[in-house]
Amino acid sequence: MRMSNGVEWALHSCVTLSQTQEPVPAARLAELHGTPPAYTAKHLQALSRAGIVHSTAGQIGGYTLTRPASEISALEVVRAVDGDEPAYRCAEIRQRGPLGIPAERCSRPCAIARAMAAAQDAWSLALARISVADLAAAIDADSDGTAMADVRRWLTTAAG
Amino acid sequence: MRMSNGVEWALHSCVTLSQTQEPVPAARLAELHGTPPAYTAKHLQALSRAGIVHSTAGQIGGYTLTRPASEISALEVVRAVDGDEPAYRCAEIRQRGPLGIPAERCSRPCAIARAMAAAQDAWSLALARISVADLAAAIDADSDGTAMADVRRWLTTAAG
Ligand code: FES
Ligand code: FES
Repeated sequence: MRMSNGVEWALHSCVTLSQTQEPVPAARLAELHGTPPAYTAKHLQALSRAGIVHSTAGQIGGYTLTRPASEISALEVVRAVDGDEPAYRCAEIRQRGPLGIPAERCSRPCAIARAMAAAQDAWSLALARISVADLAAAIDADSDGTAMADVRRWLTTAAG
Repeated sequence: MRMSNGVEWALHSCVTLSQTQEPVPAARLAELHGTPPAYTAKHLQALSRAGIVHSTAGQIGGYTLTRPASEISALEVVRAVDGDEPAYRCAEIRQRGPLGIPAERCSRPCAIARAMAAAQDAWSLALARISVADLAAAIDADSDGTAMADVRRWLTTAAG
């Protein structure tokens, strides 16, 4: 089971975007963590499709969060990039073979599939409870309160 | 994020093995859910490496669980087949770019990585709490108590 590595970039970029109301050009988001343009564009598109970021065109065009960072959960960002299919997919193997259960008696998911779904729910709930604002605050706390100020300062400087 | 589809087979097969003390030949486990011999062998090997099943050679050779099914968790079976790497892997992107944090100040995992690890822990805990015996009981309850009796009966009949 492996998550797309774009999730790390997307979460960090949403934290960055939470530090400004001004649109941030894709090139600056790429510069911040040293990601290639195509990679950056692909994941910004995913965040945009999921309604997490909004792009504005024009000379000062770029990306902003669509909502306050306290209203965007880590789960939304993860799903935007990694998809929202559950990790475990039941192929109904209980219907196969000599003891196969007829499909019409399989309307309720298999007990094994239910256990796996419950685990996925526990995972989702943990991430639904954490917002992008929480992550920004936690990163800031780890840096003794300098990290987000550094991000804000960097965002207001001209691109290198 | 996607789990190996062998997990479904492995969990069902452990439930099957929980119904007998006698070794069950790989060919019978393959027959039960219609899986190809190579697929079956590969996953039995994984379960064996993880210490969940034990193989005995000889004329009545086959596989047995190494412990009572109540002492084998769903988590162990999932990890045996799918591996135990966490789904989210932090590539330390915080160390990259113009605001990169020096590695020596990154001994504590990033707050984002910690949030992802906490979600993984919630997932693991949910599966650690469910045993193969629980799954067998739940499947049996779903069938109004006929499923495990059918498995036991089938296991005692000669291979077709
Ligand atoms: S049939 Fe899919 S988990 Fe049981
Ligand atoms: S550096 Fe990897 S999650 Fe933040």
